Amino acid sequence: MSNKIMDGKAIAAAIKIEIAKEVAAMIDADVKAPHLAAILVGTNPASETYVVSKKKACQDVGMTSTTYRLEETVSEAELISTIKFLNEDPDIDGFIVQLPLPDHINTDKIIESIDPSKDVDGFHPQNIGRMQLGLPTYLPATPFGIAELLKRSNIDLDGKHCVVLGRSNIVGTPISILLSRKNKYGNATVTLCHSRSKDIGNFTRQADVLIAAIGQPDYVKADMVKPGAIVIDVGIHRIEDNTLEKGYRLTGDVDFKSVFPIVDKITPVPGGVGPMTIVSLLQNTLSAAKRLIYQ
Amino acid sequence: MSNKIMDGKAIAAAIKIEIAKEVAAMIDADVKAPHLAAILVGTNPASETYVVSKKKACQDVGMTSTTYRLEETVSEAELISTIKFLNEDPDIDGFIVQLPLPDHINTDKIIESIDPSKDVDGFHPQNIGRMQLGLPTYLPATPFGIAELLKRSNIDLDGKHCVVLGRSNIVGTPISILLSRKNKYGNATVTLCHSRSKDIGNFTRQADVLIAAIGQPDYVKADMVKPGAIVIDVGIHRIEDNTLEKGYRLTGDVDFKSVFPIVDKITPVPGGVGPMTIVSLLQNTLSAAKRLIYQ
Repeated sequence: MSNKIMDGKAIAAAIKIEIAKEVAAMIDADVKAPHLAAILVGTNPASETYVVSKKKACQDVGMTSTTYRLEETVSEAELISTIKFLNEDPDIDGFIVQLPLPDHINTDKIIESIDPSKDVDGFHPQNIGRMQLGLPTYLPATPFGIAELLKRSNIDLDGKHCVVLGRSNIVGTPISILLSRKNKYGNATVTLCHSRSKDIGNFTRQADVLIAAIGQPDYVKADMVKPGAIVIDVGIHRIEDNTLEKGYRLTGDVDFKSVFPIVDKITPVPGGVGPMTIVSLLQNTLSAAKRLIYQ
Repeated sequence: MSNKIMDGKAIAAAIKIEIAKEVAAMIDADVKAPHLAAILVGTNPASETYVVSKKKACQDVGMTSTTYRLEETVSEAELISTIKFLNEDPDIDGFIVQLPLPDHINTDKIIESIDPSKDVDGFHPQNIGRMQLGLPTYLPATPFGIAELLKRSNIDLDGKHCVVLGRSNIVGTPISILLSRKNKYGNATVTLCHSRSKDIGNFTRQADVLIAAIGQPDYVKADMVKPGAIVIDVGIHRIEDNTLEKGYRLTGDVDFKSVFPIVDKITPVPGGVGPMTIVSLLQNTLSAAKRLIYQ
């Protein structure tokens, strides 16, 4: 593989081995294995896939996992009582509520009802606030994965200009904050661009590190990238392509083919940010089991 | 006054009149007046001054205020039990713990022990996280004041490039997030610069709106500002000056004299951001009394 490629799949595999060793050591010391639970409401196929791959990732590292399935028609009150049950169950170290939820349920209210000490998705406002304050917290999985990918690729962000495209609650906004903090990942000068920004190319061309999380296939073209930049592609889109046997190709928010020749390093799609995300959830679950964030 | 000057004092006075009217209407409707409490530990002269001016501001608008004074030597546990008392006292709508606290007290722990629904300083991680998520919250006073000052000066940030100097937890970081949100204050493209940023002038010269909260007197010079920019000066410093009878002059983070001629608008020091800050605390207290943020 070209040494320009930031191989998220390989880095994630290495982190998984580290986690598996820690879990094995806990079991050797007669501490129970970390236990991650997931609440899955309804039968959204994408959600099913995510929950299955989280379960599989747990198995790979020796963690216990349990899925709680609730009907699409479950009431908000019933969902909250399931959450309260998991909040109080000492056997569960952390849990997630797989999103999206059905329309009749207030997602913000659901997330706020999770005990922050078990919120391994890092979506509870208290954990988000702690990240902003530089306090110990569960980092949301995708920003956590991006930060680890940069760090393990020996990219030092100190004083670099990082431009983030997209201000979503789960990727763009938190990564923009995380990389500007005074911490091991951070110290970058960060510009956050979004749908209302004018002349986005003017910003992206100044970026030492460009993080594309804008949700539009092939949005970033070569003429928007500074030669020698580091490019992180958070998007993943399925594009119809009848010249291929499977009928589609996967692409990201970056037009990889045109951008690749001019960058210093770039993440591929798939195999870049994606694998880092799921391994970050495992890291948070391990931190929860070891009571590293909350005592 | 030059129409280039953003007169925080006058705008704050106007907001105070609005708040006083709302408080009077509550009392007319036989609802008790909003009640703000402050906990003051020790006898730090600056803290004394702040608490006195908050008390005075409450009086001006008809709110009730109470100060709880604790000895410098108070234990963390005693301070927390005072906080718990206020958390539970139904007569108190909101309260603040005046910072800084003595070194033997863990400030993060103290702030997290405040009930978020009474945290009118907006310092609790949960309220900070809610701001980031765009949920109803108590905005921290200085960012709230800056945002209102811009709004009431009819400055539309939509799509503008806003550069923030300084990443403190109480000013730089939250204002950088607030102005990038999809809300009535926001939609700006925001760059956050700080002590580790390189070539800060390169960023500030691109700013349509420049917010200086870097804590260094006269840091921003004319050659760092784009002609026609809006400049918000958050700093306030007392500089020795024996040519003046009082022996000092006040200045901000901006070298006002050199910058004034080239800007579109600028805040003075004093009389710019300062008066907006205290009035923001009153607005949060009113929101608390009216249960606008938490039910």
